[in-house]
Amino acid sequence: MSLSLSAMPFEDIRSLIKDFPSIDNEAISKIRERDAQLTKPPKALGQLEELAEWLGGWQKTATPKVQRPQVAIFAANHGVVDQGVAPFPQSVTAQMVANFTNGGAAINQICKSNNLALKVFDLALELPTPDIMLEDAFNEKDCAATIAFGMEAISGGIDLLCIGEMGIGNTTIAASIYHALYGGDSSEWVGPGTGLDDKGVAHKATVVKKAVERASGHNGDGLEVLRRLGGREIAAMVGAIIAARMENIPVVVDGYVATSAASILHAISPSAIDHCIIGHASGEKPHAKVLTHLNKTALLDFNMKLGEGTGAALAAVMLRTAADIHTGMATFAEAGVSDK
Amino acid sequence: MSLSLSAMPFEDIRSLIKDFPSIDNEAISKIRERDAQLTKPPKALGQLEELAEWLGGWQKTATPKVQRPQVAIFAANHGVVDQGVAPFPQSVTAQMVANFTNGGAAINQICKSNNLALKVFDLALELPTPDIMLEDAFNEKDCAATIAFGMEAISGGIDLLCIGEMGIGNTTIAASIYHALYGGDSSEWVGPGTGLDDKGVAHKATVVKKAVERASGHNGDGLEVLRRLGGREIAAMVGAIIAARMENIPVVVDGYVATSAASILHAISPSAIDHCIIGHASGEKPHAKVLTHLNKTALLDFNMKLGEGTGAALAAVMLRTAADIHTGMATFAEAGVSDK
Repeated sequence: MSLSLSAMPFEDIRSLIKDFPSIDNEAISKIRERDAQLTKPPKALGQLEELAEWLGGWQKTATPKVQRPQVAIFAANHGVVDQGVAPFPQSVTAQMVANFTNGGAAINQICKSNNLALKVFDLALELPTPDIMLEDAFNEKDCAATIAFGMEAISGGIDLLCIGEMGIGNTTIAASIYHALYGGDSSEWVGPGTGLDDKGVAHKATVVKKAVERASGHNGDGLEVLRRLGGREIAAMVGAIIAARMENIPVVVDGYVATSAASILHAISPSAIDHCIIGHASGEKPHAKVLTHLNKTALLDFNMKLGEGTGAALAAVMLRTAADIHTGMATFAEAGVSDK
Repeated sequence: MSLSLSAMPFEDIRSLIKDFPSIDNEAISKIRERDAQLTKPPKALGQLEELAEWLGGWQKTATPKVQRPQVAIFAANHGVVDQGVAPFPQSVTAQMVANFTNGGAAINQICKSNNLALKVFDLALELPTPDIMLEDAFNEKDCAATIAFGMEAISGGIDLLCIGEMGIGNTTIAASIYHALYGGDSSEWVGPGTGLDDKGVAHKATVVKKAVERASGHNGDGLEVLRRLGGREIAAMVGAIIAARMENIPVVVDGYVATSAASILHAISPSAIDHCIIGHASGEKPHAKVLTHLNKTALLDFNMKLGEGTGAALAAVMLRTAADIHTGMATFAEAGVSDK
């Protein structure tokens, strides 16, 4: 199925999400059948066996593969930085995008070291979304257009999509989305981001509280939460996850900020993110509670908190290996190994 | 320093281990200094930063690298299989070695998928060590000769060593080593291995108890525990770990069975395994308690329990990535990124 990249009204996006294609259970059965014949004790590869099934189920094939993995980083700026919620100036977003282009960032090294393709999507860095403490991040049309733009991430015949982000101030955006969707006290969803001290974190929690109060009236609707609280990179990641589902591409979601895109979709329909895994448990502590809401566990935990798709990219290496193990191993019969 | 591959008396091996070279703290200082200038918030790469330091500290260089990683699998047979402790016959060890040679095992796919070199050491499969319920696995000379043989694993100019094993019955050997070193009830150290049922596990615990009782009088000395309880692949891994330390090669230890070689060395001198990390937390449950004794945490946990070096090899990919990130990233100054 092919997707239009033009903006759709929210109502159409909601319908699309609620009508998402399902996992291919026949492919999974075939993968399990072959797994039982491979030269190893049953279940000896633990989670790697489950990952091979999950990949094949969403790729809709009994021979899961990760031969064209794509890391997509979405970069955007945020007016809420005016409230003093980030220790780095907004200009660092564009500087880091240049760093990605020049191959100098952590994600570049991960991709180079592990043969993963990398694309960076610059989302109008010179036009930050409005300060969400004062006004909505988007009108519906612009939000939908950004979602549509994010769908570009799956172009080029890829077979696995890793989504990550860069945007000074966007942990404040993510915290606001979590607080709007999951309630509680704003401080439960706020961490130090790129390095706030305790006073800074407390101030950030106040900003999040005020932004979410201002944005009230969304009734827990994912797209309305996104429209009111932003930001562009989150909207684009929502689009990327939607497009991937329509084109049978499994998705690896990066850490604390990227997961907010999954939360938006989950709020519309919990099964909407069944084709997504969370690559890495963020060192930004509230991530753990978000994952509980999403009923997900992260594949890796190296106490990282960088974003840029770094955790998703590392997880992609494990997924590729899981696929290669499943398709490449000899069966007991082929190898002449006694199976009992 | 170059090592003789001829067998040394236990007393000389103990002296060598107690006099092991230390980590290079100057290299670590330089790595930390550079890390502070890289285009990321401080500590944002969490454990990957610690791994780069650890690699450089043991490689004794400020530019850690994993360009020649070696996975070494040691295979051996065990007379204790006669006691009915394994659901597969002893012949499967040789069949699996053939499978490694032919590229059909899980470890082959992991190495191929991730560009890791693989060597298999066949330790006289036709001559199982004696049934340890009845007699010692080795005399001192044969045990020392096998340790010396294991030192071969580091040949060829490698910069990271992953050690793993294959040997029907060797979870019984590892359980016996743990029970001998750490006491408690034998059942605390025993799991289902390649697939025993509850009754089989209980029988295995009885065999372990009897073997350890028979082997009493070792006074907690690591080499004596090894000599009495075996097996060849454990002795060879002990040798590999020793040789790696002498040649500044960090080691990634695989799961439940491979860790028993680390336990032997740890019993002689706790700092003797400071140049080792545990690659993966085994699905064979007693592994967790062993790691507590060793004061180690495993890098990965995918609930695998296969051995063959699979967990160590996956961890090696993360170590290579950690090194590549550290050496390849741009500094704030180089990239023109504001650092505050």
